Amino acid sequence: MQDRYFSVDPGQKAAARQLYASVKDLPLICPHGHVDPRLFADPDYQFGSPVDLLIIPDHYIFRMLYSQGISLEEIGIHAMPPSKSPPIKRGDLPESTKGDHRKIWRTVCANWHLFRATPTGIWVRDELAEVFDITLKLNSENADAIYDAIVAQLKSHAFRPRALYERFNIEVLATTDAATDSLAHHQAIRDSGWGGRIIPTFRPDAVVNIDDAGWRAHIDQLSAAAGIDIHNYATYIQALEQRRAFFKSMGATATDHAALTAYTESLTAAEADALFQRALAGKANTKDVARFTGHMLIEMARMSSQDGLVMQMHIGSWRNHNPTIHARYGRDMGADIPIRSEFTKNLKALLDRFGNDPDLRLVLFNLDETAYSRELAPLAGHYPILRLGPPWWFYDSWLGMTRFLDAVVETAGIYNLAGFNDDTRAYPSIPTRHDVWRRVCADWLAGQLARGFIDEQDALEMIRALAYDLAKETYKLDEQL
Amino acid sequence: MQDRYFSVDPGQKAAARQLYASVKDLPLICPHGHVDPRLFADPDYQFGSPVDLLIIPDHYIFRMLYSQGISLEEIGIHAMPPSKSPPIKRGDLPESTKGDHRKIWRTVCANWHLFRATPTGIWVRDELAEVFDITLKLNSENADAIYDAIVAQLKSHAFRPRALYERFNIEVLATTDAATDSLAHHQAIRDSGWGGRIIPTFRPDAVVNIDDAGWRAHIDQLSAAAGIDIHNYATYIQALEQRRAFFKSMGATATDHAALTAYTESLTAAEADALFQRALAGKANTKDVARFTGHMLIEMARMSSQDGLVMQMHIGSWRNHNPTIHARYGRDMGADIPIRSEFTKNLKALLDRFGNDPDLRLVLFNLDETAYSRELAPLAGHYPILRLGPPWWFYDSWLGMTRFLDAVVETAGIYNLAGFNDDTRAYPSIPTRHDVWRRVCADWLAGQLARGFIDEQDALEMIRALAYDLAKETYKLDEQL
Amino acid sequence: MQDRYFSVDPGQKAAARQLYASVKDLPLICPHGHVDPRLFADPDYQFGSPVDLLIIPDHYIFRMLYSQGISLEEIGIHAMPPSKSPPIKRGDLPESTKGDHRKIWRTVCANWHLFRATPTGIWVRDELAEVFDITLKLNSENADAIYDAIVAQLKSHAFRPRALYERFNIEVLATTDAATDSLAHHQAIRDSGWGGRIIPTFRPDAVVNIDDAGWRAHIDQLSAAAGIDIHNYATYIQALEQRRAFFKSMGATATDHAALTAYTESLTAAEADALFQRALAGKANTKDVARFTGHMLIEMARMSSQDGLVMQMHIGSWRNHNPTIHARYGRDMGADIPIRSEFTKNLKALLDRFGNDPDLRLVLFNLDETAYSRELAPLAGHYPILRLGPPWWFYDSWLGMTRFLDAVVETAGIYNLAGFNDDTRAYPSIPTRHDVWRRVCADWLAGQLARGFIDEQDALEMIRALAYDLAKETYKLDEQL
Repeated sequence: MQDRYFSVDPGQKAAARQLYASVKDLPLICPHGHVDPRLFADPDYQFGSPVDLLIIPDHYIFRMLYSQGISLEEIGIHAMPPSKSPPIKRGDLPESTKGDHRKIWRTVCANWHLFRATPTGIWVRDELAEVFDITLKLNSENADAIYDAIVAQLKSHAFRPRALYERFNIEVLATTDAATDSLAHHQAIRDSGWGGRIIPTFRPDAVVNIDDAGWRAHIDQLSAAAGIDIHNYATYIQALEQRRAFFKSMGATATDHAALTAYTESLTAAEADALFQRALAGKANTKDVARFTGHMLIEMARMSSQDGLVMQMHIGSWRNHNPTIHARYGRDMGADIPIRSEFTKNLKALLDRFGNDPDLRLVLFNLDETAYSRELAPLAGHYPILRLGPPWWFYDSWLGMTRFLDAVVETAGIYNLAGFNDDTRAYPSIPTRHDVWRRVCADWLAGQLARGFIDEQDALEMIRALAYDLAKETYKLDEQL
Repeated sequence: MQDRYFSVDPGQKAAARQLYASVKDLPLICPHGHVDPRLFADPDYQFGSPVDLLIIPDHYIFRMLYSQGISLEEIGIHAMPPSKSPPIKRGDLPESTKGDHRKIWRTVCANWHLFRATPTGIWVRDELAEVFDITLKLNSENADAIYDAIVAQLKSHAFRPRALYERFNIEVLATTDAATDSLAHHQAIRDSGWGGRIIPTFRPDAVVNIDDAGWRAHIDQLSAAAGIDIHNYATYIQALEQRRAFFKSMGATATDHAALTAYTESLTAAEADALFQRALAGKANTKDVARFTGHMLIEMARMSSQDGLVMQMHIGSWRNHNPTIHARYGRDMGADIPIRSEFTKNLKALLDRFGNDPDLRLVLFNLDETAYSRELAPLAGHYPILRLGPPWWFYDSWLGMTRFLDAVVETAGIYNLAGFNDDTRAYPSIPTRHDVWRRVCADWLAGQLARGFIDEQDALEMIRALAYDLAKETYKLDEQL
Repeated sequence: MQDRYFSVDPGQKAAARQLYASVKDLPLICPHGHVDPRLFADPDYQFGSPVDLLIIPDHYIFRMLYSQGISLEEIGIHAMPPSKSPPIKRGDLPESTKGDHRKIWRTVCANWHLFRATPTGIWVRDELAEVFDITLKLNSENADAIYDAIVAQLKSHAFRPRALYERFNIEVLATTDAATDSLAHHQAIRDSGWGGRIIPTFRPDAVVNIDDAGWRAHIDQLSAAAGIDIHNYATYIQALEQRRAFFKSMGATATDHAALTAYTESLTAAEADALFQRALAGKANTKDVARFTGHMLIEMARMSSQDGLVMQMHIGSWRNHNPTIHARYGRDMGADIPIRSEFTKNLKALLDRFGNDPDLRLVLFNLDETAYSRELAPLAGHYPILRLGPPWWFYDSWLGMTRFLDAVVETAGIYNLAGFNDDTRAYPSIPTRHDVWRRVCADWLAGQLARGFIDEQDALEMIRALAYDLAKETYKLDEQL
């Protein structure tokens, strides 16, 4: 299946094969993701069971199983102790990986038909084949054999994260880290003298989302981390700037910001301070939340213009939509649902101030593909600060990526795109995800070539840009080498 | 044209042909539609003219003709007598089928070019070929010959509805019936000892839409039908529950609910009663209407959780958008226009209460295809109660169905879909509509297979599920056999 | 590259070639565009430099260059003198075309890779090949040679606009003209006895947009042009009707109206007058603006019903989104960004009054392709006054046009479409733009034909309609010959 996923027309397929061949061995640029830096801090880190490796970190898998009536307990996810309040990340809970992993694995395999024609189905199959050399199909009959084969390989030194980093041909891998994180694991990686490039990304959501139950505690942590007593808006901003400088000193080239909408609004310093004081007093209302988030996006743009960190915005996910699941199991349980997104009006306040700023770069991601051609491509095709991130989350799929290229390239070209990022916490799936993107691009460009929109020189330069150059340049990853 | 509609690539076409062959003779599951049960209550029921059969029941046809300046009168639809107020269903008017049917037929045929590349064009052509063995193209020259050929066949016993039921290989056919319906025709079918399975569907819109001019009269009918004096919210709910139990006893497995939006809201019993009293007094305002509809959707979900009837929601049609046409000719005149639809926020109140309920199943239909990938597939890919209905109305077309599969399968898989339903009042078009769906699925899966996303075993199991199993299982039609 | 852009399947390509051949030599109907009538008023009009011809009139080109950090000054666009306020059209400024055109040309060529896979890239390449017989690829190496080759040809009499009109096989070309325009150039064309048909289009936006800084001055111009002292709503309407009659006497068959949204609302004469008086006094607020625009759209529909001018509406562009660029360089600088559009609710007031009017025709354009299948096709497939304009602006591209046909034809058929219009101020690009549309239609219909949805007779009649007949009939261009 060397030509897998390519269009069936022989001419287009041959062109796709050639284009793909020209980039398949390029190093992987991973400017945005969620791999745990602990994997690299400890040179002898060993992965747990196949379930720890492939199932637990993948909310794509358990949301689908849950949608078909399989309880989360059956796949190893247990309710949090009742005392834990407010809900925290599942990853923090040792309970989460308890249970009989072989039994869980069998349950997943017995229901693997649910993933037919889904990206998860492709990723897991390709990953088993490429990383573990396992070409059996997941099902009840093969479940045990595959489980055993993975277990056997995970023991080998070749499956230590650092060894895989080399094997995967990763050039740089960015993690995502809370603004309050000590980056101790990143420091350990640096201290170890290992040659891999693992860099942090500054993600301040927890200290910006004033409606989050844990916000006040996060502010205290921010005070501690920054060594600044945060008691008003001015000290809050100072602390954020201090942390950004620290992240930058640790290799960060980017920040990341999630928001329900792209709404931006410029507050005066006095308004911002009054609002911040209400939040400290636990008295911020719904409108305050929207205004503060909108204002802080502009503030973060200002800081990015000054310190040069590339700004990322991820818009449009209604987190923890299912309150029963949230209360019982915590966050990130596959119950985040997209909403309609708007950019032309919402981003205007930010763009009015910084849209033409030569020192700012802003990468936009969203979950409403109707905005691709209507708003995002026209905006990116005009404002010099903007780049469009690759299709996100539910759209990180063959058809989703194809629709993205169809919708944005005619208006924005490819040079206003940010290339690819894998955005995963499932480390061994990284090569597969990049491979699917490279195949999509090869197939899409082969179609353009076969129909005469572009010529061969164009196609070869474009696929290299999409597969490698654009990500590296967008995230300023070449500037630091 | 055995391979009609399939992709042109020879390899994909061959795969599509094979997949289609594996399901084309499976019985038809028809869990949602609008065929009149009278057709089956009378064993000797005879269809009227070709116009009665093919034109009058099909608002797709007269909306297109009307859009091109052909008056409704020219195709046999006449204004209601002025005394009839409020407007009622055209079907109730004997005037509707008056006129010179041969002349009407000629008008339709002379304008048949308007239906080029539309689903109506396909359905009528395929139906004439498959059901009537007529392969002439509709146009002015052929009009009379085709008319005569249909007339001749309609006289034959082979064209009685029960005979066609056997010939069409229908396994079960659900009608749609008002909550106040006596189901006398269904009773007559049962009493007749005929082996066909015709089942009712509980559709309470007329007794829920408090802004409808006829609502008060419908409540009186509901009182009479249920034998319960409805004077407050509690007795209203009792009457509804009584009717649902009656429908279930008559074979119903599902309910159906139409609403302009998917807005849901939980009222307290006191609020619901106060609102219901305002409605009885004719004093409900616009906001009351939205809140009551939203509350009743949740109430219906509660009842479905208790009695096991599968709940269907059809969202997003602005009914009777053209007031001139509505006043003159009544409802269902081809002037229903879709609006933008939202589900993530609107369904939240219902999902908060019943989203994880193992006893509830909710099938969603809508007319805004932007919600497919953005909201519906993510929701169905998480909440165990949800299934996505097939593409509805304007999207029940080759490209509409293909876009649906493209948009939802990667995120929701196919096992969160409800299979197909024909949703038609045009009885002889039923096999054609299922055939188009089966061809779409064959072609779509053949593309997935040819490109290596799935293997042959996957494809064969998936097409069977899409063509037959999913509809049967979603609507609990296997449980009652 | 005779078969350029067609699908790669040999059978479909052969069918596309045949369909395209049947229409490629048909005359061009250009019912909507922005070519300057001065080009035709002066029989010896000479184009300036290649930059004047190809770069300056094309905001597609400079928006893309600007998005990649190339300043507008580098491509010959200079800031307006500070005294010019409010911002006016760049075209009014002699400064705009100053500078070293050869240097500008080199800058554009050196960055031509930005236009890979964009419609601009296609248009310019095809235009150079077809009009100038230049098949070199734009890049730094070829820049000077191409520049010189164009310059040489522009001197020739064969490149006078009137000569090109013949060579391009244009049958009729409509310009777009302010309501206050004297149409002196149109008069000069008529007086010259030249046989080309150049007709004006009545565009009253400047005298309708009461929030525009120049509105009051435009009203004074309207008074002068109409010879009517506008001091209230009644005289305003009289002046507009007078100007429409004048435009019609000069050959106009259509009007054009741009609005941010499709909102319509019927005001009483008293309300309209009160609102108009507030506007005259400079006291209209935001709500007034929306209501007045919405009311005037209905008024214009009324006038069109009376005088027979075809009404066009262009909806959904947020003009001058970038205030920095607007203040410095004026309007039309590539910073117009689409917004979400809605029609079912917004057009209802207009449709309630005129939706069934046999004397009105309304052509709708928009920049939110989600409305194609959801609202526009259902509306056009019912209301007899409606036609859908071709894909506009960012959607005037191969994939944009293909998606348009995919989205609307199944519901509205092709006979509710308005055919094509080139909508350009770049005169020499007109044949190329029509050629791309004709190729899209050939390819799309070839797909329908190859898959058996339509037969060859259908396809041949449909492509002629799409390429020629529909535009001519929609804009009543046959009635005046």
